[in-house]
Amino acid sequence: MSNRIILLAHGSSDKHWCQTFEKLAQPTLDAVSGSKIAYMELASPSLDDVIAEGASAGFTSFTIVPLFLAAGRHLRKDVPAMVRDLESTHNVEIQLAPPIGESPEIGNAIRDAVVSHLGTDTG
Amino acid sequence: MSNRIILLAHGSSDKHWCQTFEKLAQPTLDAVSGSKIAYMELASPSLDDVIAEGASAGFTSFTIVPLFLAAGRHLRKDVPAMVRDLESTHNVEIQLAPPIGESPEIGNAIRDAVVSHLGTDTG
Repeated sequence: MSNRIILLAHGSSDKHWCQTFEKLAQPTLDAVSGSKIAYMELASPSLDDVIAEGASAGFTSFTIVPLFLAAGRHLRKDVPAMVRDLESTHNVEIQLAPPIGESPEIGNAIRDAVVSHLGTDTG
Repeated sequence: MSNRIILLAHGSSDKHWCQTFEKLAQPTLDAVSGSKIAYMELASPSLDDVIAEGASAGFTSFTIVPLFLAAGRHLRKDVPAMVRDLESTHNVEIQLAPPIGESPEIGNAIRDAVVSHLGTDTG
């Protein structure tokens, strides 16, 4: 069975916050077959829900792509601990990718957004 | 005098965290004349430093582009309060742009990063 991509956001009780992440995830969900979004806390689906559902569907391997600009305490400590527990609980392999902000595509997209519609003087 | 773009990151005492944001900002700093990076807290230069320096250089108008994926408490409350104080203190106009994650370029860049090098199965 192939690998499943999970885009992991922090989560919030604020629905507008989650909607922003759903919009951020949508192009990936459209382009990458089987990919899902999940939340660390405060919103659903949880990471546990998404891994459990994937394991039930036969996936034995997952790649978590954190929708964080940089690695703070959550990505250095909390998420690796969650990953170890989930691997053990669901008998799957989980690869934790670097935070999305470490991919050069994101810095270039920030530039494009600023130049095209956020800035009023692009020098 | 023209408008100055300021990319605003949260800030951290962790140097690796700040380095990630400096890399994220670099394409914009290269492309947009006079643009700067600033931090809300825990790192330098502070937003106050960057506004003060710009005001001294003759800028009377600034656009702050938050390097946040979504608007949480900081962008809904803390940053608008900082902006009001800074406008009054430095006698300048400051426009607060939406968080960078609300720009469609970012969702597309997440997709491109996942498809090109973060995912192991792109369907």
